[in-house]
Amino acid sequence: MENHSSLIPPLGITMGCPASIGPEIILRLYQGQETFPSPVVVIGDRGVLERTAQQLHVNCRITSWSPGDHLQPGTIPVYAASTLPVQDLIWGEPTLNTGRAMVAYIEQAVQLIQQHHLSGMVTCPISKIALQRTGSPYPGHTEMLAALTAAKRFRMMMAGHRLKVVLVTIHEQLSQVSGLLCQEEILDCVAMTMASLQRDFALSSPKVAVAGLNPHCGESGMFGTEEDECIAPAVSAYSGPGSLSGPWPPDTVFFRAANGDFDAVIAMYHDQGLIPFKLLHFHDGVNVTLGLPIVRTSVDHGTAYDIAGQGIAGCTSLQAAVDMAAAIVVNRTRGTGI
Amino acid sequence: MENHSSLIPPLGITMGCPASIGPEIILRLYQGQETFPSPVVVIGDRGVLERTAQQLHVNCRITSWSPGDHLQPGTIPVYAASTLPVQDLIWGEPTLNTGRAMVAYIEQAVQLIQQHHLSGMVTCPISKIALQRTGSPYPGHTEMLAALTAAKRFRMMMAGHRLKVVLVTIHEQLSQVSGLLCQEEILDCVAMTMASLQRDFALSSPKVAVAGLNPHCGESGMFGTEEDECIAPAVSAYSGPGSLSGPWPPDTVFFRAANGDFDAVIAMYHDQGLIPFKLLHFHDGVNVTLGLPIVRTSVDHGTAYDIAGQGIAGCTSLQAAVDMAAAIVVNRTRGTGI
Repeated sequence: MENHSSLIPPLGITMGCPASIGPEIILRLYQGQETFPSPVVVIGDRGVLERTAQQLHVNCRITSWSPGDHLQPGTIPVYAASTLPVQDLIWGEPTLNTGRAMVAYIEQAVQLIQQHHLSGMVTCPISKIALQRTGSPYPGHTEMLAALTAAKRFRMMMAGHRLKVVLVTIHEQLSQVSGLLCQEEILDCVAMTMASLQRDFALSSPKVAVAGLNPHCGESGMFGTEEDECIAPAVSAYSGPGSLSGPWPPDTVFFRAANGDFDAVIAMYHDQGLIPFKLLHFHDGVNVTLGLPIVRTSVDHGTAYDIAGQGIAGCTSLQAAVDMAAAIVVNRTRGTGI
Repeated sequence: MENHSSLIPPLGITMGCPASIGPEIILRLYQGQETFPSPVVVIGDRGVLERTAQQLHVNCRITSWSPGDHLQPGTIPVYAASTLPVQDLIWGEPTLNTGRAMVAYIEQAVQLIQQHHLSGMVTCPISKIALQRTGSPYPGHTEMLAALTAAKRFRMMMAGHRLKVVLVTIHEQLSQVSGLLCQEEILDCVAMTMASLQRDFALSSPKVAVAGLNPHCGESGMFGTEEDECIAPAVSAYSGPGSLSGPWPPDTVFFRAANGDFDAVIAMYHDQGLIPFKLLHFHDGVNVTLGLPIVRTSVDHGTAYDIAGQGIAGCTSLQAAVDMAAAIVVNRTRGTGI
């Protein structure tokens, strides 16, 4: 193990929008510990972090980091991907400059991973509006990462120690969900989830549950037939690794998963998966991007512009995202026999 | 307080289907305690309970109870509403006789409440099929109770110490829910919930949240307009007691309620409310029937015929239902100044 981790490059945390809570949750993360279980560097703006530390009276030592540099315990190593004029920065007010900077952090992190200087990335939140203002062709963070890494298929997994959820449909009107379900989408979710549970979470034979759509799975067609017509056939058609079961009644499958019956649940729609996930992991939920050739986890919250710069934002989600990325890196490295 | 409770008649537990787990969870409930905070009698079958105790090696003293009798600590007082031939009873196999008996327990309990010999009732599960075989015109327990008490409107509240939920639609196909929502139904739910929180749970100014239907409440109409067209107008139209708010994003409103922001949540559909409720209250969830002139709580599980008579069924839901009924009785009695 010691040999392993000394061979693994550090993780990178992208600072996200410089006018958001990104800088302060990073400071808070480092404040909590002298050293990390695995080394972590910040891809961001040294000046912004220093000003944030000053404003919030955080006692810390921020140093510059370049690929190959040793990390000194008790310091915050920053790879400077921007040098914004800090006197112009106003909390909660992203500008074209902060937008470009946050894009640069992401591009830089991906490049450093591709050059094997970083082992994976943990992303702080960005603003979609600020992203669009830069002229970026991507609707969001994940699409941008997929393009930068030439990944064709990608999905989000909401992951916590009690519950892992992957969604078949996401931002869709509830009444439209039924029409959007198809066996291919469900099987694609299942395949990516199984692959991640094996590769990222080191589960040799994962147990994945597929939720039904209707109450009590439609109770033999009395209120809904999507289970019989689409979901059950998809489960039957699955022939990959691990153990797949379902459709299960939605109102108990998440309880069962949280109590160890299943390693992950495939949810048919946004709130079916997000209601139980946020109930259990509101503060320490992590997003893991499935389908990328690189390791990427993300905090489970937004830019929180309304409270940026006040020093009240918590870092439990960032901490969980760092811990999970570190565990995934170790599992992937072991899996490849390095 | 002592004076209060000495004036309040006992609660009645109806034994439910005699071939179900009803008898054994009642024995288990009494086994757990010498006396109850408030007196509790069983409306059921003394012979069935005695045979169950014998089969499961439960050491207990079962006595007969009639209205006005004093309760002796350490005994299980039974009001004999049936005298089934116990040698014919097979666990998990309801008959016409057991069906008629379970109906008699309910009718008898209601009558005893109406005669002020009982303060309220806690119901063990019945089988809908067994109910129909008796020629009963009611589809279920609650409809029967509504008819016996001449209640025109009734609803179920799923209640636990962390979360209380009332559903606008229940056993409906998910894709049909949108079309079934209307302001009247939502406002009816709200009114009954507010009334119960005040009268049954002694909250003088209850805080009730109304959930949205779509992810992020449709995000300004991007995926769904039911919030703007129906749910928000219903919330605005409310002019009753307490504090009503919403529509709230479904994926966080239950977390907020469980953490004290709201006393109850009005859910638009079955799984929206049941997923979070079962996650938090799988073992100690209680159903409270709103709209009845009598106090009625119910266990949150079914007859469990598959495990009846094995002595493995737990009584935590029954315990919670008894405790909640007792609290409601005290609150209602106080409210009326008795």
